[in-house]
Amino acid sequence: MTNSVSENVAIVIIGDEILSGRTRDTNFNFISKKLLKFGILVSECRIISDNKNEIISTVNELRKKYKYVITTGGIGPTHDDITSESIADAFGVKLEINKDAYNILSSYYKKIGTNFNEVRQRMAKIPSGAKLIKNQISAAPGFKIENVFVLAGVPKIMESMLNEAIEYMEPKEKAINIRLKVMAPEGEIANILEKTIENYSDVKIGSYPFFETDKIFGVNLELNSHNDNSINNAISFLKIQLSEESINYK
Amino acid sequence: MTNSVSENVAIVIIGDEILSGRTRDTNFNFISKKLLKFGILVSECRIISDNKNEIISTVNELRKKYKYVITTGGIGPTHDDITSESIADAFGVKLEINKDAYNILSSYYKKIGTNFNEVRQRMAKIPSGAKLIKNQISAAPGFKIENVFVLAGVPKIMESMLNEAIEYMEPKEKAINIRLKVMAPEGEIANILEKTIENYSDVKIGSYPFFETDKIFGVNLELNSHNDNSINNAISFLKIQLSEESINYK
Repeated sequence: MTNSVSENVAIVIIGDEILSGRTRDTNFNFISKKLLKFGILVSECRIISDNKNEIISTVNELRKKYKYVITTGGIGPTHDDITSESIADAFGVKLEINKDAYNILSSYYKKIGTNFNEVRQRMAKIPSGAKLIKNQISAAPGFKIENVFVLAGVPKIMESMLNEAIEYMEPKEKAINIRLKVMAPEGEIANILEKTIENYSDVKIGSYPFFETDKIFGVNLELNSHNDNSINNAISFLKIQLSEESINYK
Repeated sequence: MTNSVSENVAIVIIGDEILSGRTRDTNFNFISKKLLKFGILVSECRIISDNKNEIISTVNELRKKYKYVITTGGIGPTHDDITSESIADAFGVKLEINKDAYNILSSYYKKIGTNFNEVRQRMAKIPSGAKLIKNQISAAPGFKIENVFVLAGVPKIMESMLNEAIEYMEPKEKAINIRLKVMAPEGEIANILEKTIENYSDVKIGSYPFFETDKIFGVNLELNSHNDNSINNAISFLKIQLSEESINYK
């Protein structure tokens, strides 16, 4: 398998229910796989509490460090949904009723025959200057402010918002990723890997043991490089070394 | 459901294979649920790359901020297993052959009839002054240095090491946790939640929407407090308010 990657996104999962273990987060893995398909590699993920100071300091640290930041969670109508106000504070802008968001929510609640009460109107409050990200499922929008994308926490809603967020992103440094499944324990191939890295210093190799059964086990290798030639030469070199030791791979 | 919690652990998941989305992390959720049973609440989780500088700076930041830090991943025999040397650097101590670790590994490989080669001997290198944490499955130990617990990434091995790590930990601030399932959308109960928080300022309430079917949906509430009386009064207050609005709960 080969695809193009660039390392430049941090993901911030916001929610006490994830930290307590009560809810199992699926958003991080979904986002990282989806972004990889678009040539973007996630560099870091943080799972943090529904705490305003934590959200502000985390987002302010990461938005300077990475090209993009994606947050999930905390944009609903209740008192613990504090992501939008925290992001406004992080950027030093006002949180205010966004007319487009208000109209979207107002029509949605009219259509489903539910009272668009004061509490639900909170979801129309968006940091000043942010662009809305549509919610195809339950109307309440996410938003983009500079390089920070603020998405819902409910997986189906997050997924629909992510598609729109990706349209704003572009992979920067193209890189090649190749995988190889080796049918031997790590301890048998570590020397071969070290030799490969010495010879091809611009290729990064990840080594991940797997155990399918007591008798079927081995190592998944993941090679990354920005240099086409190096990665192809490295993989050929690796295969020759493995064959010389009579080690199978696929 | 009620249990005792204290907020004082950070978890660091180390591994490019998790960041790329290729491997779905299950360790974080397992650890946070397990610790909660022992009265310890996870305050933060970071998923970071197999990168020495990232590991050093993350561990040094978090070990000052939290009572305990748990890391998973990167203690195997290959070139990208750099957690042990990074932790030694973070603490400014030497990484050296640990005699007990060496003996454990040497006997293990003798028993299974596999060569205890130089590469495998790397797994006996442990930061100076660290205490070993046993590996019941494949011998290569984890370790504890001050308040940092370094565990394997392979889930079965991590789980056995975690049991030993927990023996070193103690919950510090006891707190009560009560859950309530409310059969109404968040937008209908947000005012009641705000009133409850105003009246019981030492109770923290988390509100998490769920959707079982189009017709069965609502909000899971999670109340936390260090004050027994407050949390019991808050839950009674909440139930009265919900009943007055004819909203079901369980």
